Amino acid sequence: MASSFGVVFRVTTWGESHGPGVGVVIDGCPPGITLSEERIQRELDRRRPGQSRLTSPRKETDRCQILSGVWEGKTLGTPILIWVANEDARPEAYALLAHLYRPSHADYTYQAKYGIRDWRGGGRASARETVGRVAAGAVAASFLGEVCPSLRVTAFVSSVGPLDASVPCEKVDPELVEANPLRWADPKTLQEALALVEQARKEGDSVGGIISCVVRGVPPGLGEPVFDKLDADLAKAMLSLPASKGFEVGSGFAGTRMRGSEHNDPFYQEGDRPRTRTNHSGGIQGGISNGEEIYFRVAFKPVATIAKPQKTVTVEGQEVEFQGRGRHDPCVLPRAVPIVEAMTWIVLADHWLRQRALRPESLLQGGR
Amino acid sequence: MASSFGVVFRVTTWGESHGPGVGVVIDGCPPGITLSEERIQRELDRRRPGQSRLTSPRKETDRCQILSGVWEGKTLGTPILIWVANEDARPEAYALLAHLYRPSHADYTYQAKYGIRDWRGGGRASARETVGRVAAGAVAASFLGEVCPSLRVTAFVSSVGPLDASVPCEKVDPELVEANPLRWADPKTLQEALALVEQARKEGDSVGGIISCVVRGVPPGLGEPVFDKLDADLAKAMLSLPASKGFEVGSGFAGTRMRGSEHNDPFYQEGDRPRTRTNHSGGIQGGISNGEEIYFRVAFKPVATIAKPQKTVTVEGQEVEFQGRGRHDPCVLPRAVPIVEAMTWIVLADHWLRQRALRPESLLQGGR
Amino acid sequence: MASSFGVVFRVTTWGESHGPGVGVVIDGCPPGITLSEERIQRELDRRRPGQSRLTSPRKETDRCQILSGVWEGKTLGTPILIWVANEDARPEAYALLAHLYRPSHADYTYQAKYGIRDWRGGGRASARETVGRVAAGAVAASFLGEVCPSLRVTAFVSSVGPLDASVPCEKVDPELVEANPLRWADPKTLQEALALVEQARKEGDSVGGIISCVVRGVPPGLGEPVFDKLDADLAKAMLSLPASKGFEVGSGFAGTRMRGSEHNDPFYQEGDRPRTRTNHSGGIQGGISNGEEIYFRVAFKPVATIAKPQKTVTVEGQEVEFQGRGRHDPCVLPRAVPIVEAMTWIVLADHWLRQRALRPESLLQGGR
Amino acid sequence: MASSFGVVFRVTTWGESHGPGVGVVIDGCPPGITLSEERIQRELDRRRPGQSRLTSPRKETDRCQILSGVWEGKTLGTPILIWVANEDARPEAYALLAHLYRPSHADYTYQAKYGIRDWRGGGRASARETVGRVAAGAVAASFLGEVCPSLRVTAFVSSVGPLDASVPCEKVDPELVEANPLRWADPKTLQEALALVEQARKEGDSVGGIISCVVRGVPPGLGEPVFDKLDADLAKAMLSLPASKGFEVGSGFAGTRMRGSEHNDPFYQEGDRPRTRTNHSGGIQGGISNGEEIYFRVAFKPVATIAKPQKTVTVEGQEVEFQGRGRHDPCVLPRAVPIVEAMTWIVLADHWLRQRALRPESLLQGGR
Repeated sequence: MASSFGVVFRVTTWGESHGPGVGVVIDGCPPGITLSEERIQRELDRRRPGQSRLTSPRKETDRCQILSGVWEGKTLGTPILIWVANEDARPEAYALLAHLYRPSHADYTYQAKYGIRDWRGGGRASARETVGRVAAGAVAASFLGEVCPSLRVTAFVSSVGPLDASVPCEKVDPELVEANPLRWADPKTLQEALALVEQARKEGDSVGGIISCVVRGVPPGLGEPVFDKLDADLAKAMLSLPASKGFEVGSGFAGTRMRGSEHNDPFYQEGDRPRTRTNHSGGIQGGISNGEEIYFRVAFKPVATIAKPQKTVTVEGQEVEFQGRGRHDPCVLPRAVPIVEAMTWIVLADHWLRQRALRPESLLQGGR
Repeated sequence: MASSFGVVFRVTTWGESHGPGVGVVIDGCPPGITLSEERIQRELDRRRPGQSRLTSPRKETDRCQILSGVWEGKTLGTPILIWVANEDARPEAYALLAHLYRPSHADYTYQAKYGIRDWRGGGRASARETVGRVAAGAVAASFLGEVCPSLRVTAFVSSVGPLDASVPCEKVDPELVEANPLRWADPKTLQEALALVEQARKEGDSVGGIISCVVRGVPPGLGEPVFDKLDADLAKAMLSLPASKGFEVGSGFAGTRMRGSEHNDPFYQEGDRPRTRTNHSGGIQGGISNGEEIYFRVAFKPVATIAKPQKTVTVEGQEVEFQGRGRHDPCVLPRAVPIVEAMTWIVLADHWLRQRALRPESLLQGGR
Repeated sequence: MASSFGVVFRVTTWGESHGPGVGVVIDGCPPGITLSEERIQRELDRRRPGQSRLTSPRKETDRCQILSGVWEGKTLGTPILIWVANEDARPEAYALLAHLYRPSHADYTYQAKYGIRDWRGGGRASARETVGRVAAGAVAASFLGEVCPSLRVTAFVSSVGPLDASVPCEKVDPELVEANPLRWADPKTLQEALALVEQARKEGDSVGGIISCVVRGVPPGLGEPVFDKLDADLAKAMLSLPASKGFEVGSGFAGTRMRGSEHNDPFYQEGDRPRTRTNHSGGIQGGISNGEEIYFRVAFKPVATIAKPQKTVTVEGQEVEFQGRGRHDPCVLPRAVPIVEAMTWIVLADHWLRQRALRPESLLQGGR
Repeated sequence: MASSFGVVFRVTTWGESHGPGVGVVIDGCPPGITLSEERIQRELDRRRPGQSRLTSPRKETDRCQILSGVWEGKTLGTPILIWVANEDARPEAYALLAHLYRPSHADYTYQAKYGIRDWRGGGRASARETVGRVAAGAVAASFLGEVCPSLRVTAFVSSVGPLDASVPCEKVDPELVEANPLRWADPKTLQEALALVEQARKEGDSVGGIISCVVRGVPPGLGEPVFDKLDADLAKAMLSLPASKGFEVGSGFAGTRMRGSEHNDPFYQEGDRPRTRTNHSGGIQGGISNGEEIYFRVAFKPVATIAKPQKTVTVEGQEVEFQGRGRHDPCVLPRAVPIVEAMTWIVLADHWLRQRALRPESLLQGGR
């Protein structure tokens, strides 16, 4: 079950970077939902390489095909198989990788785990696996768009290398984010941020950063107490992304420095519903949504593939110097934005369905 | 499945804070492992309230009983049921909580989710639920202690409120940690840290902080690529803990500010195995252990229960002022240390068994 | 996960026959359902040994205790732990079993699987494990009783040894079944059936038989196509019972001798719903309920424990003669009736919740 | 999870009968296993329509393609996606089915469940779904063939309509079975059996029958006690097959008429292992294999598609007469033989891996 995620809305991705293709099966999507390849393609295009020179020049049109589960534009309730063929697979470009372990890639750990590995572009460990996640996220968003139209998920790059955007979550404008190649939320520092990535690219180096995500319109009651807390499942979803090293929700690490009297979110009443004056909880209390905005941040390390020479060892244990030549991103962040959103939609769809099984009447309450 | 964790080594906790008791069922523990109530009790005693005046004065001996799955001191391979009776349950102390929602507790979200809640001391949302986790962690540790005796898990408090301990992970002395009531790793700042908590207690307030954890001796190859990455499962495990708001592994959030050329961990050869000169990866690459030390940090907010007056609303929607009177910890951190360790053991046991199913011969490789 | 059953309504049993007790955790039961120990006890009393001289003289009051998940008579939506202490455990009576394998018991297979076994009365392999199933079935029935009050599950003994009851499923009177110690459906042959069991008891032997079960009032749409077909899950549920050797639904094995033109169930219209004139399908088509009566049959072999001398081998490989002395049933069937019903309720509750997650509006249709 | 089967070796099928294709994802197959499209094709060819005039004339070459998880002829340990395109899809042939419910098909129940259905040839309910199962079975067989080369799975048709083959399980010759178009085990009655099917075909009717399956060389210790008993999982696997109505293992329904003293299988010692003189248990005791031959029987009703006129209702509730015209099998049995074998391999692979996680050393014992 290593390649599956979710309990009721269950997503299984498959595919290697330089095999015939990559894709996903989604089992548990309710029937009767409007779904088309165009809808899915829209999200895939946001993830696609080659959108700007910030990202990998690999040429992939990433055209998706729905092979099952959808008919005449509606989901059937049966498993949805979405497939994207690999077009610009150039395994030969990676032939020299067969015999060494690239630093901070998964080459060595795959070998240790499986005793065999597809060394062509990282094989299954390639970020190309996330194609399936983005497609599944589009399916989840289509479903939730019908049952909870007020729901909004917006991710954006909030820091790149040492530079922080200075726009708070609640003020982020999704259109502005989408309009720049870095998906940077802060117009004032956009040029500086772009320059920082461009500098890394020129130097054959890479930069990391942070993606923030805000979810509006979640009804109270989503998330299970104990192990499958809504924030625990979001944390798992985000840490399962390539290059991710951290997750924090609400006040996060900074909140550990506050006193309880400052951190607690006082309730007040608005109409028939309790609301909170502050939102250090990040919209989740005891693992369950309280109807306020959910917001969280995900740390991405600088991508491991760089053009600079590096020390490493061969499969046979020889210490060597190695210099990468693949087609890669100096900064993974803008392409990771739709992936963070997709995983968020998937988590929400799964918890929505779980709550509908448990107590459907609770889902009539709206969230902010 | 909201109350279960793990795929092969599967843990299910149960129980409310002021009901008859709390406990856990563990299904999937291999047979023939030496296990006793004393072994489990040792860990429960580390979690128990009333150990010092830093923690809740609730009187619980927390005596565990094994009701199944163990016979003549050995596990049978069948489900292990461990039960701890609630002794000092004083539901009447919570009677005034029946009609209002405490700020930043799960009172409101449970009501929104279930339409009913056990308001006695937080019911299922109480940190008392973690008794079952600690017991299950002792079982996991007993199993791994037999198959991988070199494995060590050490957690400790590395910051409290605004104060950071200045001892790096790799230098932490577990005995020193266990010898002070705060489980603080840094002798130089221990008095300062204790004073900080004591000050909060006197003021009827609470403090948050960070727990660090280091795992030594993990063989390479544990963890699944894609969704069930070892760090993704650790992230879920940690975010599922009460009051937890963040998780980072290896270089974490700070690593996002580095360049790829700095962050990559160069390989060198040691005997028959590749090792890394630096360890920004935190012992996990592509979701799979590489044999180096795994280290991560978990953020805990200041606990929500404080003695100061707070604004909130009643169940009927009246805005009121509320002042808590329960028995609680000004600082949850020292008691959370064994809980963090327990969840780590559980994650490791599950991934060990999954890897043994997949490729048993790989587990003969040792880790550092 | 060997000891768990169900996807959303998830049941985990635990306990050995002569350990401290046996029980069950139910995770996923919706909140707000009326539930009491009395309600559960009613079903446990039907399963209890010592009800008549047809069954084992083991003295167990089988008093259940709810340790979590229920408060003030209502389910909380949290895990429900039900425990029954073992009172009349006499492990010493089994001491001679430590060194040999009883024919057609699980003694040898447990040893082969685990390398260790609790030989006291079969340990985990004892039918005493079904206490937890019956308790969980009462919880499932309580839930379904509230959301689908027309639903009825009736099991009865329809053959014992070579004797068949001649009452068709649709004419069985549940009160009549419950009124005789064999739970035999056919008044005309009751004395003959009782005499047959009594004869076996006298001879120190045992008899097998068949339990039939009929479910009325199931709405159309329950059950998943492909692997989790409603009849596939019922088959698994029934074959997981001790001593069970077969399952057939609808026309079953006899139906294989019919032509398609005879076997097909013609549809006609009744009000707003299609109905079938015959019911060879047994109320399930393509794995999904069609609203007609579901009926199935379960084969139970004669119980393995008999008083006659038998040939067997010791743990060390010596061939010996062995004569049992435990307290056992000459005929397991009457006590298996409530167990068959319990497993049926559990399957229905799980599929009901799965369907509610998928498409709640479909559950408003009534079944026959 | 409706379309997934297995815990560690996890199979998910997808696809509609007249959509772009059908297939399967297998997650959890160990790495390093030799696997080719030819190996899988061999099994698919046994299931393929058009092999003789006993079966559907639908023209499908059923060429499989492996899209992931295999490289240079070896499994990678990552998900294996196998796809078979639908070639001879003629949805227009089914257009009249859009408005009515065929008797004893899943047309009505899909509509009741989902509120939408793909009426082209049964959509997902078509037996074409089993393509994915057969492919997955070939993968399971490839794995088990490497770790347990003595293992053999042989299914065959043992009754057709009212005619029984008179060859006992232990004497069946797999080559003889494979050499006749009915996969009939008994040379003496082969012509009679063929004539019986031919007669049904001529009359536009269909016949049912029974498939027997025998498994040799299973080591003792496979199968979990309680819910995931080896026979319970086999029962579920078999009842999940289209048109299946019953399952019995070992002595089955006939065994219910025996006395315990006859039915019990006495142990004797052979070398270092206990064996049984009779095998009424069918190689499974307490849900766990004992190393003897496993044998079971599966009942298949006559297929629902016949050419004779039948009464039914339209979607709008009109009662009408209907006459089928699709391309179908008068007798599903010979094509079901490889499907029964495939599901058996899948169950065995999953339980093998589960046992390897639990106690790998136990798998060194051989079975008969």
